[in-house]
Amino acid sequence: MIFESTDLSAVINAIRPLNAKVLAEARAHTQQLVMPPRALGRLHSIGEQLCAIQGTLNPTIERKAVLIMAGDHGIATESVSAFPQEVTGAMVKIFLAGGAGINAIARQVGADVFVADMGIIPQITPDDLPNGNHLLVHKMGPGTANITKGPAMSRSQARKAIMTGFTLAKELYRSGVQILGTGDMGIGNTTPSAAIGAVICKKSVDLMTGPGTGIDADHLALKKERIRTAIELNLPNAEDGLDVLSKIGGFEIGGIAGIVLAAAYCRKPVMVDGFISTAGALIAHTLCPACADFMIAGHCSEEPGHRAMLSYLGLEPLLDLGMRLGEGTGGTLAMTVVESAIRVITEVMTFEEANVTGKI
Amino acid sequence: MIFESTDLSAVINAIRPLNAKVLAEARAHTQQLVMPPRALGRLHSIGEQLCAIQGTLNPTIERKAVLIMAGDHGIATESVSAFPQEVTGAMVKIFLAGGAGINAIARQVGADVFVADMGIIPQITPDDLPNGNHLLVHKMGPGTANITKGPAMSRSQARKAIMTGFTLAKELYRSGVQILGTGDMGIGNTTPSAAIGAVICKKSVDLMTGPGTGIDADHLALKKERIRTAIELNLPNAEDGLDVLSKIGGFEIGGIAGIVLAAAYCRKPVMVDGFISTAGALIAHTLCPACADFMIAGHCSEEPGHRAMLSYLGLEPLLDLGMRLGEGTGGTLAMTVVESAIRVITEVMTFEEANVTGKI
Repeated sequence: MIFESTDLSAVINAIRPLNAKVLAEARAHTQQLVMPPRALGRLHSIGEQLCAIQGTLNPTIERKAVLIMAGDHGIATESVSAFPQEVTGAMVKIFLAGGAGINAIARQVGADVFVADMGIIPQITPDDLPNGNHLLVHKMGPGTANITKGPAMSRSQARKAIMTGFTLAKELYRSGVQILGTGDMGIGNTTPSAAIGAVICKKSVDLMTGPGTGIDADHLALKKERIRTAIELNLPNAEDGLDVLSKIGGFEIGGIAGIVLAAAYCRKPVMVDGFISTAGALIAHTLCPACADFMIAGHCSEEPGHRAMLSYLGLEPLLDLGMRLGEGTGGTLAMTVVESAIRVITEVMTFEEANVTGKI
Repeated sequence: MIFESTDLSAVINAIRPLNAKVLAEARAHTQQLVMPPRALGRLHSIGEQLCAIQGTLNPTIERKAVLIMAGDHGIATESVSAFPQEVTGAMVKIFLAGGAGINAIARQVGADVFVADMGIIPQITPDDLPNGNHLLVHKMGPGTANITKGPAMSRSQARKAIMTGFTLAKELYRSGVQILGTGDMGIGNTTPSAAIGAVICKKSVDLMTGPGTGIDADHLALKKERIRTAIELNLPNAEDGLDVLSKIGGFEIGGIAGIVLAAAYCRKPVMVDGFISTAGALIAHTLCPACADFMIAGHCSEEPGHRAMLSYLGLEPLLDLGMRLGEGTGGTLAMTVVESAIRVITEVMTFEEANVTGKI
């Protein structure tokens, strides 16, 4: 893999918006389906989006995968999470062993699970593990620096994190994966995600910050204070995604931004999961607004700032099931909705084919 | 099949509530899963409900099916629908040919589609059709009578419609189907459904009545007027499900009530679909409140009265995707959520199995 500084600009310049002609054709086809007009609601708009992404009235999804980006956070030592930092590495092992929430859901929908070590603290070697080939080790470092003391990472590290996510996702798409879900693992990572949401969406830290894995009111107040400090100290430029990522982000969040850019670059759909994944999508959107056309919001997280992030991106979540786990669980579960949407637009008969009289 | 008048009472008397002991055990198990407490939201409560329904911490769903109840309505001649009455029979043929919305979604989730002719006007013979053995002909009559002129059907027909649905669903469950979705087809059937909702939930006709397949404001006003007339003329007794069904119901709505009773009787889950299916569930609930424990609300319909019906039954819908087609589409799509919920409670490692430290 090559990570030259020019790569990111080349990627962004190569991204084109949806195919508007196919989108219009898809909408016209929906009107002909043997049912009242648009009676399947969101299934129609998602099916039409898939047509416009793939540039065909016969979109397909055969292979599905979720790519979980894992990273540790310097801020995790500041009592912002209910779980100790060692859990990040432990969960990476559990993903490979098939024992986590995402594994159960991925088995149900038939998606492969890949994990990228973007910068967790422990050294985990694929050779020692079951499904070791599903662990992709691309450490930027042993966790980010503490954002209440200075930037999370350097600007070149931010660029490299994004390009690593881009390259990994591009390889998966090129190998035949037709829909990729974003996933995250990193104790403490709702803290940088809330900071990113507040800066890019220009919302208050109060609105953007929630209990994450489950902290009490005192710790929530402390978490908000830490986020305010990080923003005031680092002064990220909301118009510059690399600046935001480097100053208040995370290695895995950069990787997720790269997945989103790869989707737009390869003209494939990406399922954006919850709060952390959407922070990554915000970084990608700041770099290249057109990539929002290729996003599908899998679900709305219980984390209170998530809906504001989705609104900023113009996304309406498919599911709202009170989930707040991350790992890619919401986006992966929603893949079935996307596959159903494709079946509706490609398999349902038209009024003419069915020889049925339309409306009175 | 035997349809004696005593059968319905025997069914109702045999229904028992959920297994409270297994429910408590399932909840305790969820707390041990290697994730923050109840971080997968509704997936946990659905998984626990499945444990309590099946009476085991290892519930399974292997075979899935949807049973579409079809019937015509005398009221359809009164300009209450955007589609002509012939569409009911035409759609029954399309279900068997595999060309409707429900077929596309059922293929995605791996569910079989069965159709019961509970009383459509045309004579459709299974022998002439593809998948003819999936058409179950149990006509109560050539559509109901016009409810603005008198009762939809006799009390004995109402009982027979319910017992027919019960018997068909019981046979499917006994043959190995582990989750059954309710479906409906019947031009005009949002009209009796709104009437049933208004009477049983004690809500206004205005709140309960919507555009169905798509009528304009003038026809909507007319539809509300017809519903008020039907209720005032027939005076259904809200405490007596058979009375409500016979006076302002439909043959397919009775069939759906029977499916719901069969689920509770067989101790299997039933996916309740949209507005018409929930009207059937309301009839079943009036006859036997305990059957609500076995219901899962697949989705919230765009039909405005649906949420009030679901609230009355204590149900929270899994999906909310702007769907308003019926046919069982919402309930069938949501089966994947139920299967994912089972995988979460049965497949995710506990903190102890995963050797992960819990909360700080």
